[in-house]
Amino acid sequence: MSQVNIWKRLLALLVTLRSISEYDCNFKMSFVKVEEKSDFSYHNLPYGVFSTPDNSRHRIGVAIGDQILDLSAIKHLFNGPALGPHQDVFEQPTLNAFMAVGYDAWREARKCLQMLLAANESTLRDDASLRSRAFVQQTSAVMHLPAEIGDYTDFYSSKDHATNVGIMFRGKENALMPNWLRLPVGYHGRASSVVVSGAPIRRPRGQMRPDADMLHVFQRESVRIMQRVDICMLYEYSSRIVLFGTVHAEQSDAVLMVTYSMQCLFLFYVAARDIQAWEYVPLGPFLGKNFGTTISPWVVPMEALMPFVEPNPVQDPVPLPYLRHDDPYTFNINLFVAVKGEGMREAATICKSNFKYMYWSMKQQLAHHTVNGCNVRPGDLLASGTISGPDPESFGSMLELSWRGSKTIDLGDGETRTFLKDGDEVTLTGHCEGRGYRVGFGLCEGKILPALQQ
Amino acid sequence: MSQVNIWKRLLALLVTLRSISEYDCNFKMSFVKVEEKSDFSYHNLPYGVFSTPDNSRHRIGVAIGDQILDLSAIKHLFNGPALGPHQDVFEQPTLNAFMAVGYDAWREARKCLQMLLAANESTLRDDASLRSRAFVQQTSAVMHLPAEIGDYTDFYSSKDHATNVGIMFRGKENALMPNWLRLPVGYHGRASSVVVSGAPIRRPRGQMRPDADMLHVFQRESVRIMQRVDICMLYEYSSRIVLFGTVHAEQSDAVLMVTYSMQCLFLFYVAARDIQAWEYVPLGPFLGKNFGTTISPWVVPMEALMPFVEPNPVQDPVPLPYLRHDDPYTFNINLFVAVKGEGMREAATICKSNFKYMYWSMKQQLAHHTVNGCNVRPGDLLASGTISGPDPESFGSMLELSWRGSKTIDLGDGETRTFLKDGDEVTLTGHCEGRGYRVGFGLCEGKILPALQQ
Repeated sequence: MSQVNIWKRLLALLVTLRSISEYDCNFKMSFVKVEEKSDFSYHNLPYGVFSTPDNSRHRIGVAIGDQILDLSAIKHLFNGPALGPHQDVFEQPTLNAFMAVGYDAWREARKCLQMLLAANESTLRDDASLRSRAFVQQTSAVMHLPAEIGDYTDFYSSKDHATNVGIMFRGKENALMPNWLRLPVGYHGRASSVVVSGAPIRRPRGQMRPDADMLHVFQRESVRIMQRVDICMLYEYSSRIVLFGTVHAEQSDAVLMVTYSMQCLFLFYVAARDIQAWEYVPLGPFLGKNFGTTISPWVVPMEALMPFVEPNPVQDPVPLPYLRHDDPYTFNINLFVAVKGEGMREAATICKSNFKYMYWSMKQQLAHHTVNGCNVRPGDLLASGTISGPDPESFGSMLELSWRGSKTIDLGDGETRTFLKDGDEVTLTGHCEGRGYRVGFGLCEGKILPALQQ
Repeated sequence: MSQVNIWKRLLALLVTLRSISEYDCNFKMSFVKVEEKSDFSYHNLPYGVFSTPDNSRHRIGVAIGDQILDLSAIKHLFNGPALGPHQDVFEQPTLNAFMAVGYDAWREARKCLQMLLAANESTLRDDASLRSRAFVQQTSAVMHLPAEIGDYTDFYSSKDHATNVGIMFRGKENALMPNWLRLPVGYHGRASSVVVSGAPIRRPRGQMRPDADMLHVFQRESVRIMQRVDICMLYEYSSRIVLFGTVHAEQSDAVLMVTYSMQCLFLFYVAARDIQAWEYVPLGPFLGKNFGTTISPWVVPMEALMPFVEPNPVQDPVPLPYLRHDDPYTFNINLFVAVKGEGMREAATICKSNFKYMYWSMKQQLAHHTVNGCNVRPGDLLASGTISGPDPESFGSMLELSWRGSKTIDLGDGETRTFLKDGDEVTLTGHCEGRGYRVGFGLCEGKILPALQQ
């Protein structure tokens, strides 16, 4: 490691230590009350788009505790040099314009919010009239998609997940394809299928071939639909990417915010051969993955995640130069998936995974995505793909948890699953655990409706 | 065939015969002069989005001869019951709102335009002031993307193309995958990569493995970039699709308009094995196809294509019921690809294909796309995939024309190609040939710029 790199690492470590000590000592930093287990501590301040029963206009807000701070009501308070001329971004019905103003403006927005919400700051705290206009109870708000999503890309960046799926379909010897350790494999998903937490997902119908030895095919409802867990990034537009070429992983601080998603997959029951072969050879997943992707409404700034950064996994072979970066960009985010069947008293947690199990970093995904000149726009969504860890309880998809349907997943109450049943409610939660506070993503949930009969 | 179907076919035939006789006798139907070889006859009237040097506002126009009729200047003339309440759709900077008003409004718009442009109709013809505001020379206009494209789907619906590619990579015995004859195979492309005719395409850089026997990989500029020819559809939004389930091919008159595209593909030079294997296993094409897709600026109404409909190809095996339709929906559209290298005096035509070679119809593609509940929005783009015919001169991609680079394509002037060189200008044209008139798509062109050196 070069001297420069040693210094960079030391510096990063110091910054982290300072942040942790600050954060740990100051978990009651805001005049807004925040419960210890709330996802939305003063250290988080995620952005979202909401409306209320008395005001149907979609507007941008920030979550803190059980409140939403309506930025359209306080936009005049963002007076810094970068954001001052662009206060109207907080009047928009989506985050796209805010994303497009760039990194300096986001930092400024966050600093301004931390100032305004601080326990010792009177601007908002002591202005009862402004407070009553600017704060909304989360329980009385309806959340919407945080951005207009132009394109949605799904990677395949968890080594444990790729290995598990590889073993299931190709055997242990060929579990990882030769390209997997060289580049972050990805594909284009369907942006129109992305819905916000709470929207139900209808069981799809489609063409399938139940048995590889039979020549005939059927149209019927899919038996095997399953959940998986992802972390998504919502990206900024960088003119650098579009006009001046591609991004090196070292430089790719273009990431603004992180949300996360749950995708219901459409898997046909195929008894004796590659489960997805019927549809996806040779051009990849299509109808199997484009009928429903649920994302959380709250978009967490990367700065809020920095105190939870960990060393990157060792990559062997060493990737090509455009994919290298020395700064740690692996995040300790606990992820949980729970399922509640109809009639069950409470949801059963079926998976405990962690975002740190990802092999390819978000920086590497972005660098790879743009290496050929592909443009990225504000609001574009990039997903990590299913995140599985080394232990069976950390497997991030029902495909792995039930090992392709060969064993049951116990939900308690006498209920078991291999794949999802109609009426199942699936909940994804995720948070970083500080001392006495959390930086979390809120709920990401959806109910499975029965297929249409027609 | 049922009696009902015989009647439906007879009726379709009568409509076609009437249209042809009308059209053939009346090729000078408009007061706007149209050359016989112009793509934009009175029978075409395609929609596009343009601006002019003296007015940078993007506005909707209709091409006729060498003119554009600016619909924002004559929107008050669209007074029918369906479109009258929605005249503001012609004030929008894209076609999305017009697409969203639906089929009755489109028919009405077309009838109104045919009336206004007719030789014997005085409203526009005799109003010099309105004419001067409403007509713009095509040569003085800049064309823009006709719609905001939400999602872009690429099918793989030419049997000759799929067979050729299959032979190259899997041998004659396994040319078509088992699913190919059962469903229209497709995948999601990158909407942000779609550009309008005239935009240059930069040669991509990327990761590749030049030799399957070598373990190391490189980042460098792609040697093998090639052209291919597609017809794209721009779709309407149908609440039927989204709210009430899926579309049966019989009912899928949801198609509004047809444009077409040329895609530069990103193919690495790989000597000894499946050419795309390095990137695209197991999740399909990604960086190989997301750096540039050029579409024509003019969007042709399906009604203008109906006189050129032909019987559908016989499909064996008979597809599942949701993919069946009896009405002919195969169109005789001549397609040409020409390449002009730097220093060449004129472009050389390298491919003469036809849209009628498509095996899966547009109706079948839409029915398949939505069978699982996937929603389709106005402005979504669906492409047929490369269209090849049975003869070598009709092969729709340089991959096939050069048979994977194993033989050269003669351009005259001593120039040959296997794949595209820097500086090559590629032009795609397409038209239906009536007697004395054409219904065409205009130019779809782009120049290959050298890769960025960085």
